[in-house]
Amino acid sequence: MSHPEFLPIQWKSTHLSLLDQRALPGKKEFLEIHTVEDTIVAIREMAIRGAPAIAITGVFGLTLGAKSKSGKTNSEEVDTLIKQVFESRPTAVNLSFALKEAKKRIEGKTDWESIQKIWESFALEMMVEDLKANQTLGENGVSLFPKDQSEFHIITHCNTGALATAGHGTALGVIRSLRDHGKKVVVYADETRPFLQGSRLTAFELMEDGIECYIISDGMSGWLMNHKKIDAVLVGCDRVAANGDTANKIGTYNLAIVAQEHNVPFYVCGTKDSFDLNLKTGDEIPIEMRKESEVTQFDFLKTSEGKYLLPEGKTAPIGARALNPSFDITKAKFIKNFITEFGCFVPGEISSRLKKV
Amino acid sequence: MSHPEFLPIQWKSTHLSLLDQRALPGKKEFLEIHTVEDTIVAIREMAIRGAPAIAITGVFGLTLGAKSKSGKTNSEEVDTLIKQVFESRPTAVNLSFALKEAKKRIEGKTDWESIQKIWESFALEMMVEDLKANQTLGENGVSLFPKDQSEFHIITHCNTGALATAGHGTALGVIRSLRDHGKKVVVYADETRPFLQGSRLTAFELMEDGIECYIISDGMSGWLMNHKKIDAVLVGCDRVAANGDTANKIGTYNLAIVAQEHNVPFYVCGTKDSFDLNLKTGDEIPIEMRKESEVTQFDFLKTSEGKYLLPEGKTAPIGARALNPSFDITKAKFIKNFITEFGCFVPGEISSRLKKV
Repeated sequence: MSHPEFLPIQWKSTHLSLLDQRALPGKKEFLEIHTVEDTIVAIREMAIRGAPAIAITGVFGLTLGAKSKSGKTNSEEVDTLIKQVFESRPTAVNLSFALKEAKKRIEGKTDWESIQKIWESFALEMMVEDLKANQTLGENGVSLFPKDQSEFHIITHCNTGALATAGHGTALGVIRSLRDHGKKVVVYADETRPFLQGSRLTAFELMEDGIECYIISDGMSGWLMNHKKIDAVLVGCDRVAANGDTANKIGTYNLAIVAQEHNVPFYVCGTKDSFDLNLKTGDEIPIEMRKESEVTQFDFLKTSEGKYLLPEGKTAPIGARALNPSFDITKAKFIKNFITEFGCFVPGEISSRLKKV
Repeated sequence: MSHPEFLPIQWKSTHLSLLDQRALPGKKEFLEIHTVEDTIVAIREMAIRGAPAIAITGVFGLTLGAKSKSGKTNSEEVDTLIKQVFESRPTAVNLSFALKEAKKRIEGKTDWESIQKIWESFALEMMVEDLKANQTLGENGVSLFPKDQSEFHIITHCNTGALATAGHGTALGVIRSLRDHGKKVVVYADETRPFLQGSRLTAFELMEDGIECYIISDGMSGWLMNHKKIDAVLVGCDRVAANGDTANKIGTYNLAIVAQEHNVPFYVCGTKDSFDLNLKTGDEIPIEMRKESEVTQFDFLKTSEGKYLLPEGKTAPIGARALNPSFDITKAKFIKNFITEFGCFVPGEISSRLKKV
């Protein structure tokens, strides 16, 4: 691998260094975090985002908390520290699991020094495992692309890169792995309205890595497939049901339909945590409806002082209504393959594959 | 018809009253225009847009020019006036045709008073004809919807309303006509990136008319069709080839593919000027590539002082590349019917229908 990994979370032995995603895509700034309190602020204020990234950061936060103390401790003190970190983002399931595991691992320990060492090891282990899973996923994805072809044109949706993980990413992980195999990759990134994760985050990561990238509006993919040979669509996933129906960022389903019309293979990339065999089909996946003003007023775009960049009445009439579903469900029939760290397979194989993991 | 027509161009005998589209959607302001010079500024600075609207405004401009003069004239003076108006928007084909006709109509006239009267009549005639064509188109469109159904849910793309015409509009004309027939209509307006004509203009017109409207991002239509019974997609057209392939605002083609997947009828609305039998298929329609910064920086959104509302590095990394085709081509096979002022028909009937017009 010739290109250095782009790592948004870095452990510096004495402190944590986090890429501040609030400053993206305009500025690349790292937060140097020395205390559990600052870690909590970073999670709460979304300097870091993405389920695996938040969980890893949370455990490094515990480590910093333990490091600031010395001598003996008791389970009450430990519980208070864990609760503090948990409350930075109480709805983050991965964080909650990681904190439970963190507590289990220090059972019987009564001094802060031992606890700190155990948590530090655990956080590093999580980071390495997540990175390894994404790199394996990326390698597995490469196997779906013809070996004798030197250049690939790929459409992506939303952000599925290093920024939400310990590094490498899922759909962007496959792209990085193709690049590591010496392939030229040209990426067309759906801007992904309403939140623009494609133009703000995916384009940022690809430019950092020197991978050729063009932002397109979400309505341009059909035009593009008619004008250029597109080799694949690569997307991530938030949740996959047992039958292969896939919840992912709104707009994914339209892209899947358009890809099928043009015979462009549509690949869903995700690690094993994304698969939920308790859900029979996508109909059982609840879809969160978000604030209308994200559509009508782009209200996530603010100045550093928190002022709206787009006041009311600029992008839509004052008082206009909107719909804002956060996800859509792509039916399994549109998905050519899932790309995971435990192999590539068609929707029909999900259950049997997961049993072996 | 119970609802008053929403008219962006109004002739007040002594002067012209124009809805200033630069202030939309935040403010509804009419420009009161008394001179040809002010008409030219209004056209050049895009206070008025849309091919039919510009042509009508141009001829009213001539009328105001003639009105400011008196006594005898000669062809040189007349030519200078016409040239002045033509140069407000030299690429507008409809304006150019209208000015040629305006010149023809005053052949032999040598006094400004007669010329003024002829041009005033001609402009009013153009306005009435365009309005009538759109109203007829709207009525024809109504015939495609079941008579015994009282409520219709419709998706639109871009703006195809009164704002680009003398009034009523094409796709929005059908919606207005359904409302005039006592039907409840709920419209889901694609916001239409990159220019947001759907959220800025379509939502504005519908709210003015009291028609229920929800703005959706362009990637939400598939989700919507799965969650709600959508009765039709109604779009406009910029140019239709002899085989029915249709050029329209970028994103139309994706919407057509998604509609077909969900068995939602996809209707293209346009007046006879939109059909070009000289073009065999959509492959012969050239597609203009516009500025990348419209995608990466939303650079059409400016303050009244002309300052960018979204500076670089907010919606995309500084230096990011983008693609920005202004139109796409929807293949004829996705179009269930064309809706025109001379009837509704399938793509295969275009040539025979146009011969009779």
